[in-house]
Amino acid sequence: MLKHISTIRVRYADTDKMQFVYNGKYLEYFEVGRTELLRSLGLPYSEVEKQGYQLPVVEASVKYKSPAHYDDLLEIETMVKELPDPKFRIHYVIRNMTTPDTKIVAEGFTDHLFIKTETKRPTRPPKFYMDIILPFYQAK
Amino acid sequence: MLKHISTIRVRYADTDKMQFVYNGKYLEYFEVGRTELLRSLGLPYSEVEKQGYQLPVVEASVKYKSPAHYDDLLEIETMVKELPDPKFRIHYVIRNMTTPDTKIVAEGFTDHLFIKTETKRPTRPPKFYMDIILPFYQAK
Amino acid sequence: MLKHISTIRVRYADTDKMQFVYNGKYLEYFEVGRTELLRSLGLPYSEVEKQGYQLPVVEASVKYKSPAHYDDLLEIETMVKELPDPKFRIHYVIRNMTTPDTKIVAEGFTDHLFIKTETKRPTRPPKFYMDIILPFYQAK
Amino acid sequence: MLKHISTIRVRYADTDKMQFVYNGKYLEYFEVGRTELLRSLGLPYSEVEKQGYQLPVVEASVKYKSPAHYDDLLEIETMVKELPDPKFRIHYVIRNMTTPDTKIVAEGFTDHLFIKTETKRPTRPPKFYMDIILPFYQAK
Repeated sequence: MLKHISTIRVRYADTDKMQFVYNGKYLEYFEVGRTELLRSLGLPYSEVEKQGYQLPVVEASVKYKSPAHYDDLLEIETMVKELPDPKFRIHYVIRNMTTPDTKIVAEGFTDHLFIKTETKRPTRPPKFYMDIILPFYQAK
Repeated sequence: MLKHISTIRVRYADTDKMQFVYNGKYLEYFEVGRTELLRSLGLPYSEVEKQGYQLPVVEASVKYKSPAHYDDLLEIETMVKELPDPKFRIHYVIRNMTTPDTKIVAEGFTDHLFIKTETKRPTRPPKFYMDIILPFYQAK
Repeated sequence: MLKHISTIRVRYADTDKMQFVYNGKYLEYFEVGRTELLRSLGLPYSEVEKQGYQLPVVEASVKYKSPAHYDDLLEIETMVKELPDPKFRIHYVIRNMTTPDTKIVAEGFTDHLFIKTETKRPTRPPKFYMDIILPFYQAK
Repeated sequence: MLKHISTIRVRYADTDKMQFVYNGKYLEYFEVGRTELLRSLGLPYSEVEKQGYQLPVVEASVKYKSPAHYDDLLEIETMVKELPDPKFRIHYVIRNMTTPDTKIVAEGFTDHLFIKTETKRPTRPPKFYMDIILPFYQAK
């Protein structure tokens, strides 16, 4: 399994008049999570794009567990549990590091497909990607 | 069933470098859909808040069907199929009015609960809300 | 002088925990103003881009006069007072149509230059643009 | 003079179809700059709010010098050159740490006033703020 933890600070711009983080912002936090997961593998997403591929979101889901507030420090746990087939799901758990009990703020997933930038059509995961992630899934 | 159709114009700010609308923006478009549904019932959400209630999103889901581009005119169909119990689900279908076949751009739902603004705790749907929506669900 | 008035409804997503519209959002409202000004001339910005040109913002300024709130209906007055030389300034005045005195919410400007999409380099305003705007500045 | 340097990573959500960071996003980057400046003084803005004060933006200005791209690492230099009188100006210079010459991406300022949260009316800078910043401006 691929797994990475990154952190994010809630901006004033992220909040709404309900005093909490706006519901749509969590999809942006998920983006930060998967971007940093890829970077930790030595494969920044900008490099994926330079190779002529893109990874659009085909489905997204968020469960809002407890509100996050301005200036809270959030931890985003990002996990990829299975190999692409060819679609793959990225899981996220966001915890609030500002509260003593590190409450879960939100959980969710995004589903992705590789497409070729040039044709914008789905394609099998490229070899340079598989080479990097396969070792994480191999039987011991 | 409650149903409403509103329209939205894609802004430059909504797009990202993939040339399409950013995935997180659709939750904002869903917000426009339910805001205009409530307004069409004579019950703007700002009035719900003035009565001391809020309707936070507790879960959200989006399926991305085909990309929307800058300046596309989108139609948001917003539907509430069931009475609150006490949670209720709002369904959305976004269609692209700029393409001749009015392709579906995205589909999804948001789940909501009434909370009291003062206590931030869940509560049964208030009477003023039920009085307005009940006629839409009554047997003929 | 070129002049156009468009309207915008403040979204929940636009507000922040101060209960007002977030300061950065006004640059997005300005975008709506100039987009609709161009459309009213029969020259949507998407058409400008199809012709191989872009109009990036090189400077922006906003004065915040009175707060706008969730669901307020705002009027954006957009004006171009002078011909491009080659830079040109677009002026904006945003008024709150929800308050009885249609208070000014914000004023500001954005400065723009034509660039060629291919080279990303500044260029003189293209003929198709000048043909459309020149009549608005000619002496009677 | 007060001065602080913080860094920011450009998100996909921050870009637009021109492939650069959207012009309105820079006001959000400025927010990060002043938030981290205040935190470095031991006075997080959330603490200012807890004391019953807010610091709304009354004017903002941005000059866009060179485009920033997805995943670029930006450095935000934030400076307060003068004491509040009672309005005060915060200056920002954003540099691109990803380019070898650390090009300036944008420069600008925001003007602020203290208001009391309860009355939403302007007020003199509170003592707890002046006590912290005065030593930075005293003659040697």
